[in-house]
Amino acid sequence: MREIENGELKSASLSQLKELCGELREEILATVSRCGGHLSSNLGAVELTVALHRVFDFPRDKIVFDVGHQCYAHKLLSGRAGAFGTLRQEGGLSGFPKRSESEYDCYGTGHAGTAISAALGFAKARDLKGEGGAVIALVGDGSFNNGLIYEALNSLKILNTRILIILNDNGMSISETVGSMAAVLKEMREGAQDAGAVEGSQNAARHDGETSIPEDDVRLFEHFGLTYMGVVNGHDMAELLASLEQAKHALEKGSVLLHVHTRKGCGHAFAERAPTETHGVGAGGGAEYSRALGEELTALAERDSCIVAVTAAMTDSLGLRGFFEAFPERAFDVGICEEHAAVLSASLAAAGMRPYYAIYSTFLQRAYDEIVHDVCAQNLPVVFCIDRAGVTGRDGETHQGVFDLSYLSPIPNLTVAVPKNISEFRAMLRMSVHMDGPLAIRYPREGSEGAELPENAIEIGKFEVLHSTMSDIVLLAAGERCLNLARRVLKRAQNEGLELALVNARFVKPLDEGLLSSLKAHTVITLEDNVLVGGLGDAVARFFQNSGKKVISFGYPDAFIPHGAPCDLMREYGLDEERILACVREQYACR
Amino acid sequence: MREIENGELKSASLSQLKELCGELREEILATVSRCGGHLSSNLGAVELTVALHRVFDFPRDKIVFDVGHQCYAHKLLSGRAGAFGTLRQEGGLSGFPKRSESEYDCYGTGHAGTAISAALGFAKARDLKGEGGAVIALVGDGSFNNGLIYEALNSLKILNTRILIILNDNGMSISETVGSMAAVLKEMREGAQDAGAVEGSQNAARHDGETSIPEDDVRLFEHFGLTYMGVVNGHDMAELLASLEQAKHALEKGSVLLHVHTRKGCGHAFAERAPTETHGVGAGGGAEYSRALGEELTALAERDSCIVAVTAAMTDSLGLRGFFEAFPERAFDVGICEEHAAVLSASLAAAGMRPYYAIYSTFLQRAYDEIVHDVCAQNLPVVFCIDRAGVTGRDGETHQGVFDLSYLSPIPNLTVAVPKNISEFRAMLRMSVHMDGPLAIRYPREGSEGAELPENAIEIGKFEVLHSTMSDIVLLAAGERCLNLARRVLKRAQNEGLELALVNARFVKPLDEGLLSSLKAHTVITLEDNVLVGGLGDAVARFFQNSGKKVISFGYPDAFIPHGAPCDLMREYGLDEERILACVREQYACR
Repeated sequence: MREIENGELKSASLSQLKELCGELREEILATVSRCGGHLSSNLGAVELTVALHRVFDFPRDKIVFDVGHQCYAHKLLSGRAGAFGTLRQEGGLSGFPKRSESEYDCYGTGHAGTAISAALGFAKARDLKGEGGAVIALVGDGSFNNGLIYEALNSLKILNTRILIILNDNGMSISETVGSMAAVLKEMREGAQDAGAVEGSQNAARHDGETSIPEDDVRLFEHFGLTYMGVVNGHDMAELLASLEQAKHALEKGSVLLHVHTRKGCGHAFAERAPTETHGVGAGGGAEYSRALGEELTALAERDSCIVAVTAAMTDSLGLRGFFEAFPERAFDVGICEEHAAVLSASLAAAGMRPYYAIYSTFLQRAYDEIVHDVCAQNLPVVFCIDRAGVTGRDGETHQGVFDLSYLSPIPNLTVAVPKNISEFRAMLRMSVHMDGPLAIRYPREGSEGAELPENAIEIGKFEVLHSTMSDIVLLAAGERCLNLARRVLKRAQNEGLELALVNARFVKPLDEGLLSSLKAHTVITLEDNVLVGGLGDAVARFFQNSGKKVISFGYPDAFIPHGAPCDLMREYGLDEERILACVREQYACR
Repeated sequence: MREIENGELKSASLSQLKELCGELREEILATVSRCGGHLSSNLGAVELTVALHRVFDFPRDKIVFDVGHQCYAHKLLSGRAGAFGTLRQEGGLSGFPKRSESEYDCYGTGHAGTAISAALGFAKARDLKGEGGAVIALVGDGSFNNGLIYEALNSLKILNTRILIILNDNGMSISETVGSMAAVLKEMREGAQDAGAVEGSQNAARHDGETSIPEDDVRLFEHFGLTYMGVVNGHDMAELLASLEQAKHALEKGSVLLHVHTRKGCGHAFAERAPTETHGVGAGGGAEYSRALGEELTALAERDSCIVAVTAAMTDSLGLRGFFEAFPERAFDVGICEEHAAVLSASLAAAGMRPYYAIYSTFLQRAYDEIVHDVCAQNLPVVFCIDRAGVTGRDGETHQGVFDLSYLSPIPNLTVAVPKNISEFRAMLRMSVHMDGPLAIRYPREGSEGAELPENAIEIGKFEVLHSTMSDIVLLAAGERCLNLARRVLKRAQNEGLELALVNARFVKPLDEGLLSSLKAHTVITLEDNVLVGGLGDAVARFFQNSGKKVISFGYPDAFIPHGAPCDLMREYGLDEERILACVREQYACR
């Protein structure tokens, strides 16, 4: 798509702006079809983004995108149309706002709930420096469940500054947004619609008693020091422009919340009908650990009435839809509330239930204190099912699951398991019902099923020998990706006449000290889909410290890993077959 | 104090209950005077606790204390009066609720904001198991600023159960509670007082239009599915009993919020006048790092208008009161909102300011995702001033600052510094204004001033040699406590004719690779006031991996460390002078 100059946007007629929205939609659709990405959220935010670029003056004015997955039109309107075909490709544009990419991206995001806090920081800095310009936080209704949003709203008056919060309300997180705040927003949307407010009347932003939006809903926002405006039809350009102008004007006096009603997937028939399925569009392929989680947990729950499942707004992508349908009473999706979900899990366990808290690796960081303080300090049998561990690829820095082994290992009482394939994952889940303390199982999105394992195949803290142990060099690998890599290295080494042992390091904590002690090898090579600092390699090196054995670790360096294909990222950032093989050769040569 | 039998409490007259409150107050006062602890919060909650024990049937009914620092009367009423003299002493009663201590403590706490989530877990488990009993969350108004509370409230309707939330509203966190929610609560308290509601009328819990509590404040809670009752005078036993009975009855139909107005420090003239000063009563003594933080930051801010300070409801104990008074425009206390404070800091830095976010080590865990996602992934120059690092002592498991080196080290872009004394801390703060990425400085509460350092004395990633480096054994210690320990070991070793080198490991990340590479020693002994997994020892061992050098690490084991005196805990949990000296002797002997 051609670059849109700022001047063009400022002088365009209403019909030209509408035409531009069509172009943007086509470009987004074409690019996401090719590169994957977030489809329905971006389609839903096109008119709003165009209107924002028309009314405000970026990059002098600042906009922070909450989560940031809805920033495609913004990228296309800020000098990045030419590069848009590289979206999410290695070396290409990020799928999220990124400071290093453009001065139009003043603040990087990826996780939910940060935008209002971030906008407040920009606004305070502006005030302190005596500068001007508007600061805008664009936040979806799903994020309004998150505690960070509340903390930021609660401090609006303390901070004594002015920001514009645009609530992009499509009634959806990845699935339908849940919770009391969502119910309030729905009541407001419906109130506005009753009064014909979304039907394109002239007086766009209203809070003047002429709609049937309940006054006490409005007052909810006013409590926090916000002037409430809305509900605006987020696909009516004239209404959007008028209300943004009105909000910009009101912003001179204080902070404003502009409530915009959008339709996720707008302008694309299938995406509108299936917004959850088209939230994230990826390459797919391969069996998924998430499906196994759903199947296994449902089967276990049939036999054990204490089993409950907890998620934070990701039921479908974690594979738990079936469980939620089979056991609605024992399944809790609390919205984008990773911390609350962790404490809820801890207390359910304290009360005798067996909670399984499923979450992506990168989002579990949000619940770190609760893992330590609520779950592990009380040694409660919560099972953390950590999906999307290791490099996750196209979403980049903010979504790589490469820190979990490091931040989980120092926590006392916690067992950390890494299955070699989906069958072993199933066996670990079956094992977990007998645990009397917390367990974390981390796994990537995709894998292979593998051979079925017998009952009680997995014992806590026991590794599995996959190929001899009678070699001078042992490959010790955690997880399917690293074991596959290790098998390739093993095969090629054998072809060169170099024998290797291969061990499945199922548990990163506790280590299998018995097996490690029995190794005759002089060199242990560890492989992990995690940063090297604080991971498996460090644990093994600590065990062999001063033993005379050599420990060589492969994993990721001390750097944030950008977006790219997982297999490419693994190779480029340290898990490279050639390098490991070279290391093996060298170790043989030097003995 | 004598044990109070449950029967005695149930049959006591009103005047006997009031008498009991007097006894409890005396016991709390006497014990805290001797053992330290939380004074004013506990004095304020005496009548409320007695009334709860009278009306409810613990441990069948469950109560979760938010933060947990206000549980002393509860302990005295649940079979622990005899042991109360051991409060906070090693091996004695914990100052917080603890599952292992009593079945009356159904859920352990220590950090703010977890109680409503935890109560919801107990209530759901009760429902699923078909059991009965009330579940109560006792939450202070300070915690109502925290995002976790909002996440829990927001999911009340989703979870479809019944809990009683008692809002123990004294208008105070450690200092006065800030924020919009606090303003709402204040408005409600004052509304109730206008109507004489707190003056001991018969109709205790009211929401019947006869008070002047604004209806839309009440509606704020109703939005979340709560029946609001209050405001109750938390020091009027008759009113408390009546309103708790009423709440208990209402609880049969749905969740209830009972708003109780208490006075922090009630019953003790000085504690009432100085509730902040008597919030936590400790042994004290020694110079404090926090004072240096306040002095140094104020001096720096006079020269650099970009410097701002951020805290989460702990301005006084972090030493920043002076800064807040000198630069009110550049000082932000956002309430108990550790996550929001971190994002605010990140965005202030993104906008060109130089934020200093001061916080206790254990509470920084709450902001883990924001440290990774907002600060470090964007490489923003936020300075984390991490107080109460290492073992903190009397508050026990939930307050030990022994994980920070481990959870911070794996984060890319972050520099982690550990000053050897207060002067070095000052020098690090002066150095930090020139950083172009994030910095964490961790320090204990108390220390010694030390000799003043010249300008530019500290260089990032450079250690300091304190005693030769030409020895076969090097002691490498991080932080004042460990360096003091190392000096004692050095002296005793010298007396035995064993020479040692001593190095101040000022930076745990990055390590001083130049200095480490130049060491001629065969053995490096590391000392750190942190768990061994993932700390300094592991970093040094990683550096020397396969080098032939021996690395022996002293620090804390993989276990939660209970309450006790810091010096005792250090010795007992791994930083023992005798053991280190024995290790030195052994290393000399075996070469």
